Order: sequence, then structure tokens, then C-alpha cells
Amino acid sequence: MIQTKGYAAQNAETDLAPWNFERREVGAHDVQIEILYCGVCHSDLHQIKNDWFPGVFPMVPGHEIVGKIVKVGDHVKNFKTGEMAGVGCMVDSCQACSECQQGLEQYCQEGNTQTYNNLDREGRPTYGGYSNTIVVREEFVLHISDKLPLAATAPLLCAGITTYSPLRHWKVGKGHKLAVLGLGGLGHMAVKFGVAFGAEVTVLSTSPDKKEAAEALGAHHFVVTSDAAQLKAVKGSFDFILDTVSADHDMNLYLSLLKTNGTHIVVGVPAPYAIHPFSLIGGRKSLAGSGIGGIKETQEMLDFCAEHGIVSDIELIDIKDITKAYERMVKGDVRYRFVIDIKTL
Amino acid sequence: MIQTKGYAAQNAETDLAPWNFERREVGAHDVQIEILYCGVCHSDLHQIKNDWFPGVFPMVPGHEIVGKIVKVGDHVKNFKTGEMAGVGCMVDSCQACSECQQGLEQYCQEGNTQTYNNLDREGRPTYGGYSNTIVVREEFVLHISDKLPLAATAPLLCAGITTYSPLRHWKVGKGHKLAVLGLGGLGHMAVKFGVAFGAEVTVLSTSPDKKEAAEALGAHHFVVTSDAAQLKAVKGSFDFILDTVSADHDMNLYLSLLKTNGTHIVVGVPAPYAIHPFSLIGGRKSLAGSGIGGIKETQEMLDFCAEHGIVSDIELIDIKDITKAYERMVKGDVRYRFVIDIKTL
Repeated sequence: MIQTKGYAAQNAETDLAPWNFERREVGAHDVQIEILYCGVCHSDLHQIKNDWFPGVFPMVPGHEIVGKIVKVGDHVKNFKTGEMAGVGCMVDSCQACSECQQGLEQYCQEGNTQTYNNLDREGRPTYGGYSNTIVVREEFVLHISDKLPLAATAPLLCAGITTYSPLRHWKVGKGHKLAVLGLGGLGHMAVKFGVAFGAEVTVLSTSPDKKEAAEALGAHHFVVTSDAAQLKAVKGSFDFILDTVSADHDMNLYLSLLKTNGTHIVVGVPAPYAIHPFSLIGGRKSLAGSGIGGIKETQEMLDFCAEHGIVSDIELIDIKDITKAYERMVKGDVRYRFVIDIKTL
Repeated sequence: MIQTKGYAAQNAETDLAPWNFERREVGAHDVQIEILYCGVCHSDLHQIKNDWFPGVFPMVPGHEIVGKIVKVGDHVKNFKTGEMAGVGCMVDSCQACSECQQGLEQYCQEGNTQTYNNLDREGRPTYGGYSNTIVVREEFVLHISDKLPLAATAPLLCAGITTYSPLRHWKVGKGHKLAVLGLGGLGHMAVKFGVAFGAEVTVLSTSPDKKEAAEALGAHHFVVTSDAAQLKAVKGSFDFILDTVSADHDMNLYLSLLKTNGTHIVVGVPAPYAIHPFSLIGGRKSLAGSGIGGIKETQEMLDFCAEHGIVSDIELIDIKDITKAYERMVKGDVRYRFVIDIKTL
């Protein structure tokens, strides 16, 4: 077994603290990565607090993992020691169902194996990237180009693919008016991708003070959602809304901002929301959801980012400051993603 | 002015009763129809009871209108006296916005003019088909083929187009598994169209006693939604659900019956429903709405029905029995649409 250092929550009531644990030995099809950076996702906090469902404890969060390959199994074909690599939200899936066969492992019919807070296919708990090393089967390891600044690449593994995938799936691009709802870790990536794909991008935000920041990211327009006049001016104007907000918000209001045939795509996870049927029927609108992206598409996204010089805007932190970082994250006080420097572990 | 006989609700508390009123003279672009049959839509009852919004009273309901043209204006190009014609849910729209230009008058940016319970573009109340004659601008009049049995054609103008349009828009057909939720006026048309378009059709119903009736309509499968085992067997199996139910129901349950990338289309109008974001995110699912159809598509639907021998299954009633018919409709005690024989007026 591989002795591993990490930060874990022992239960839903405790803060994260140092914890040593074991990872499996590197199997024939496995890749071992020395973790260098790990992004901090809002879902890390939701999960250690059991906000969504009872978790598997002790819990080592982290699913925006980048680092250096230090060992590969005998049958590993596509990775070599010394290369940079990444791991996102999944470390396994059935690999046999029609979704897996289509590269949609995130929608695996048997459920994918999450990078942490899950049991793997042999029933062992999975532990995430707030740790110094990880062992993952090669099908779930991503290549990271040397062109990409490594720390700022970590958030691409969740915030990046979660916004890239729906924009690609719904073919958002030139000629489309895209609104990005919420300007946090996911939202700022959605703006970068939307702009890169040629869409006319509007940031919808509750915070008037994010206007300059939104424009700096490339957004063409900025609308303060608490300003009724600004909101009225964009009524019925968007082809797509990419909704990254996890706090409760009035979906019917945002649906009214869509054009006929428009689509509101949720990637954030607020509490259940009330939809009035007329909000959809009036204008043949769709409310859709999208979860991360498949492995093939995640690689495509990373390659696209390398080619177009797209990474996350980050603030690098010491892992000892993780609880403070969570507090700031909840307040939206980060532009736009905390990334843990794992050498501080 | 044209003296007209009809049945009206004087306010939201009274039953329908005979009422005489005036219609406008036939203008240069108008068609006057002697109404022979009018379908009874559940929305007629919702509207006279102010269930959705405060209505325009006195209210003459009815938007599934068929009859014979008795007069045409001097500039009418496409209709002649003596021909059979129909009028659906709309009698006007701005005719200028991009939606109207695309033949999507139902989503007119200025709002279409509803056949009843609305003010027309000059501010006069509109009155529906529970009456002996109607005057409508020709752009909103439909041709009815002589091949179609007239009374059973009336419901095509709302129940027909409301189900035809989304099935066409989402290209439902061969290779698709379609579930039809609810087997009433809309649901039975959805089954007929789904089968005609080549889809594998399952009826989802709360009533086990509708199985034979569903099969008689051409449905390939029948699932009783109160039976947990039957429901479990179809989990994750449908490409589309066409949801015709206006009573409250658990959308999250039905979303779980969709395949990855599946779409749940609502055409019924229940109270606002609660959606859990994971119901959409897990499987990249869509919840969409659709409202009736445009005029061009309504004509296409009527022509398709004439070609394929599709009409509604109806029970013809005397207009004096309308209140009794509403009571039976609320209980689902009609297979599948009441149609008023207007000569009983």
C-alpha cells in the first residue's frame, strides 16, 4: 500500500485537518501521480458538510488535481513517468454501458466512481486531491500540456469541463447571445469559453462591483440582476443562459430572459426550484442540466485550453488555510478559484 | 354588426348559459364561419373559473372550431364561401416580429390574440366557439379537408396541434421511445401522432383501466404509474416524455424515467412544480415546454391528419349539457374529447 498524506474531514461537523491514509498499490493499468496542485470546488464544502447526501468519512476532498506521473503500471499505454497529468471528478465507471461507450462516463448507467466521497468498484472509499499522491486507472487520467501553467490548470478539471461541455453540447457560438449567471469559479470559465467560441456574452450578477472584472474576462455586457430596469432591457434576449449559481434563485425570472426556443442550462446545484409551466410553454423554452463532461471531452477541453491559452484565474493557498478559504469562497470573495499548493501539505 | 348566439359565463362564479352578443362585420381580410362543431378543452373550464388569471367576462369559451364559410371579405385570397374551415386558439398576432415571420405566431413578441378571453388588437373582447358564428382574419383560418369527419376534426385545432407541434419540433419518430403521460384529450392525440411518426409509444397513466383503450389507440406499451415495479422497469428508458397532465405530479419521478439526453416536454399546465437540479444534471436531461403551434404548422397537421385518417375520438354533446360535460371531464370520464354540436344551440 502507498502511504499518503492528506487533509480530511472526520465527519460532517469537523473542519479539515491532517490525516494519513493508504492508497492501493499501482496496478497494471494504473497511473500514480504526485499531486502538485488541487483546486477548491464549492462542492468540496457541500460534501464535507453532507449538504447533498450523507458522505463517506473520513473524507479527503478535491477533484481538480494536477501533478507529475511518478509510476505507471505494466500495461499502461498512454502515460509515462515524468509527464504532467490531471484527474477530475471521476476515477472509474463501468466502461461497458452505452453512455460509457459514447464517452459519457459521467452518466454511466451504473454510476461513475467519484474521485472522493464514494466507494470504488471494489467497495473501497475513494479519497481526493487534498493529498500528496493518487493512484488512478489510466482511462481516467488526462494529459496536461507543458504549455499550460500548472496551478491555474487544476480548476479546468471541474470548473472548466463543467462549463465547456454544455456549451459544446448545445453548440453555443457565433450568432448566439449567451448569458452567464454567476461569476464565480464556474462562471468565469463559462465567460472565457463563451467568448472563445464566438458567442456574445453577458454576465448576469447580483454584484454591481463585478462589472469591470467581467469585462476583463472578455464579457461583452454586464447586467446587475437586482436592477429591474437592466433586467427588463434584456427580457427575451438570450439564446442560452448558463446558470452556475448554487444559491437559491428565481428560475422563472431567468427563463423570461430567454428568446423563443431558448435554453437555460443549470450546472450549479441550488435547492429544488419551483418552475411555473407557463415559463416554459410561453416561448417553447427548455430548462436543462449538465454534469461535468466525459473523459474524451475533458481531454479535448484541456487541449483547446492549451491551444488558446485559457486557464482559470486563481489564488494559490497554503493547505493550512483551507477553512479560511472556504469561508471566503462562501462569501464569493475569490477571483475566481482557490488552488491548494500541495507542497504546503 | 353580426348578431350572434352563444353560451357565456357572466363571471367566474356562474355556469355557462345562453347569451347573445355581436361580432364585427366581415372586413376586407376577414372570413365568417358558421360554426358547426366546437371541441371542449380543459382550458375552457380553467379560464371561466379564473384558475390561471382574471378573465375577460362575459366569456364565451371554445377554441376548437370547425364550420362552413358563409362570407369572405373583398381581399380574402385563400378561402371561399361554402368551404369547410377551422379556427384554433389564436385569431391574430402582430404579424411582424421574428416569431410571426417564422410562423410561430403562438410566441408572438407582442402576444397573440387568443380566440376568447382576450382583447383583440383594437381592444375589443374576443369570443370563442361556443357560438353559432365567428369572424376571423384569413391568416388565422385553417382549411379543413373534405376527407375529415368534421366533428372529430374540431379537437385537432387545440389538442391535435398542441401534441403534434412538439413531436415535430423535437423530431420524435422511428428509433425513439416516447412516453405519453396522461391519456385524455391531448394524450390520446399524442399517442396517435407518436405512432404515426414511427415512435415506440408507452402510455403512462394512473388508471390501470385505461390499458386496453391505450392499446386500441396504437400504444405499444402501458405503464401504471402507481405501480412501483412497473415504473422501475422503465427507469432511464425513454427518449421523450410528452406530459399532457394538468393535475400536480412529481416531475422528478418522471425525469428519472428518461434516458441520458432525454427531454420531458410539458404541454399541460399544473401548478408550479419543484425540480431538483440533480434530476436534470444527472443524465443531461431537459424539461421543455411547448404551446399549441403556429398557423402554418396547424395547416400541415390538418393535412397530415387528412392523409393519414387521424382524428380525435369524441363524444358529441348538446350544448345544454356543457356543465355536466365539464364535471365528467374533470373526472377523466370522457374518451377522449367532448365536442359540442352547435346546432343544439
